[in-house]
Amino acid sequence: MSKFFSSRLSSLEAYVPGEQPKDMAYIKLNTNESPFPPAPAVQRALTEDTVAKLRLYCDPEASRLKAALADSFATDASRIFVSNGSDDILNFAFLAFGEGGVAFPDISYGFYEVFARLHGISAEKIPLAEDFSITPKDYFAKGKMVCIANPNAPTGMALSLEEVEAIVKSNPDSVVLIDEAYVDFGGESCAALTKKYKNLLCVGTFSKSRSMAGARLGFAVADEALIADLERVKYSTNPYNVNSLTQLLGVLTLENQAYYTENCQRIIEARAYATKALEALGFSVLPSSANFIFAKSDRIGGEALYLALKARGVLVRHFEKPRIADYNRITVGTLADMQALVAAVKDILSQ
Amino acid sequence: MSKFFSSRLSSLEAYVPGEQPKDMAYIKLNTNESPFPPAPAVQRALTEDTVAKLRLYCDPEASRLKAALADSFATDASRIFVSNGSDDILNFAFLAFGEGGVAFPDISYGFYEVFARLHGISAEKIPLAEDFSITPKDYFAKGKMVCIANPNAPTGMALSLEEVEAIVKSNPDSVVLIDEAYVDFGGESCAALTKKYKNLLCVGTFSKSRSMAGARLGFAVADEALIADLERVKYSTNPYNVNSLTQLLGVLTLENQAYYTENCQRIIEARAYATKALEALGFSVLPSSANFIFAKSDRIGGEALYLALKARGVLVRHFEKPRIADYNRITVGTLADMQALVAAVKDILSQ
Repeated sequence: MSKFFSSRLSSLEAYVPGEQPKDMAYIKLNTNESPFPPAPAVQRALTEDTVAKLRLYCDPEASRLKAALADSFATDASRIFVSNGSDDILNFAFLAFGEGGVAFPDISYGFYEVFARLHGISAEKIPLAEDFSITPKDYFAKGKMVCIANPNAPTGMALSLEEVEAIVKSNPDSVVLIDEAYVDFGGESCAALTKKYKNLLCVGTFSKSRSMAGARLGFAVADEALIADLERVKYSTNPYNVNSLTQLLGVLTLENQAYYTENCQRIIEARAYATKALEALGFSVLPSSANFIFAKSDRIGGEALYLALKARGVLVRHFEKPRIADYNRITVGTLADMQALVAAVKDILSQ
Repeated sequence: MSKFFSSRLSSLEAYVPGEQPKDMAYIKLNTNESPFPPAPAVQRALTEDTVAKLRLYCDPEASRLKAALADSFATDASRIFVSNGSDDILNFAFLAFGEGGVAFPDISYGFYEVFARLHGISAEKIPLAEDFSITPKDYFAKGKMVCIANPNAPTGMALSLEEVEAIVKSNPDSVVLIDEAYVDFGGESCAALTKKYKNLLCVGTFSKSRSMAGARLGFAVADEALIADLERVKYSTNPYNVNSLTQLLGVLTLENQAYYTENCQRIIEARAYATKALEALGFSVLPSSANFIFAKSDRIGGEALYLALKARGVLVRHFEKPRIADYNRITVGTLADMQALVAAVKDILSQ
């Protein structure tokens, strides 16, 4: 830290993203990326002419992209926000709506706590139940912003739409942010509920089911007053936040939805295979509605398994944190990826 | 504004970017973009394979890009920061280093004031001299962060390297941010001075001389402790802030520097032509070291000229602000663009 750094931020602990090792080729099951590339039409989209036009600023309103998203959610573009990855939206939302504090689960996406500290917002971390589920009534009438990943990470466990609605309904005076990064793998989206509730902010991403983690594209669906607030923060921060190429690829992605839906189905099948195979090896696997599973063995510790898998070329994510240190979060890749994972686990357990 | 919006931010006035009209094709001289496309090798860089790899997250460390920038500035990668456009860096810097307040010219890039308000930082706006120049001693020993665009916008006028150094030297306990968005058109970069002064933050962009406004890429050169502070804010905000495609295009841009240097030379020549032609028509034109000129006529008001040019298909930027309302900021395009501008002005003045 330099002597010039803000004293208010001096204790800020940054988020630690999943490792991106360059030493060898891994079966990479540590950052919940899709094992499938973007749709063929998306892959062919970038021509010399597209790049030539980069001399001009991107459309700060992202009009075509917002219109395409609005179509896909059967709503108006005034109810859509887009940003440079969904982290950007979470950051804006904490700043815009978190002044009175924010409540989120004690075990969830680690960035929520970082955003709270960054903006000097008091954070109430509500413990998950013993079985790692979220108890909806813990979030009723909080009198502050509520932020829930649904499905939750790293557990993969989902709330039903009725449970989400009950939380939203009981907090009419604060924003309820539902982070749906993983919703397409078995969860239920609350996007349509935003027409009914002015305090509901539904956040999504192109990084998981839409195979575009490297292009950075997140979006939100909400009442137009909430969207206007986010736009105001965006225009006070970085008006041209989504680059031209990503805007274009986003539109084409939405035009090829069938391809992505099929990929989600393949991931759900690979998840079922991996869950069953790990359970057969004595693992406890939480019921996942996401593109990852959260599992522990009673025969090997969480960190030991992570290291042994890494030595065998399989990268998973281990969190050295209370309650979950025995577990690993394993991204669901292709069926072949999962077979390789299971083979590596068998090898480790047989040593 | 929704009832949920932060009371602290309720008076925030967002930045208003230059208009991006879609009603007709304009000669677009309003947002200081380059009239030239990226280099041919850059235009050819994006293949189906590049897009296929977007399923993976981008490198959060942007290692290749930082190495290429470090090479081009003859320094180490630990002294380089990259971000989603230079606005992103300005935003981070105000947050990280502006706690004790910030001083900047009263007439400059409009976003400085927005960042100050966003972060609740007291802003001291120091008037430009009568001739619109910056008086270096006004920024000596400020006891707070100093932020200066050099060349300044919208005036185009530059400080010498000696003047910048004097300001940096006199503020050893606060960060001096020099925003060099326009430096390649006749200014002197302070990048090398960052080896001598730990408080100097030199910020650049690929949006102007490097023809990549739509790809969003900004960078900073500074002492490694300042860079580490910026990284800490980035990792608390949006670790994957520069997408994979932009990282790749950035590297290739730096490998084709000769192409861009030649383009800058062409813009400098077109600027000389336009300056002389407008002066011949009775305009006052400030001495510009940037890719725009700031000019006023004693025969037509600033807003009237802006509107008359727009009606003729030439878009320039007018700021309805004290001291500069008589002026327009005119981006320097190709020589043909400038000839069209001058013809339109002649037509307007002859009415």
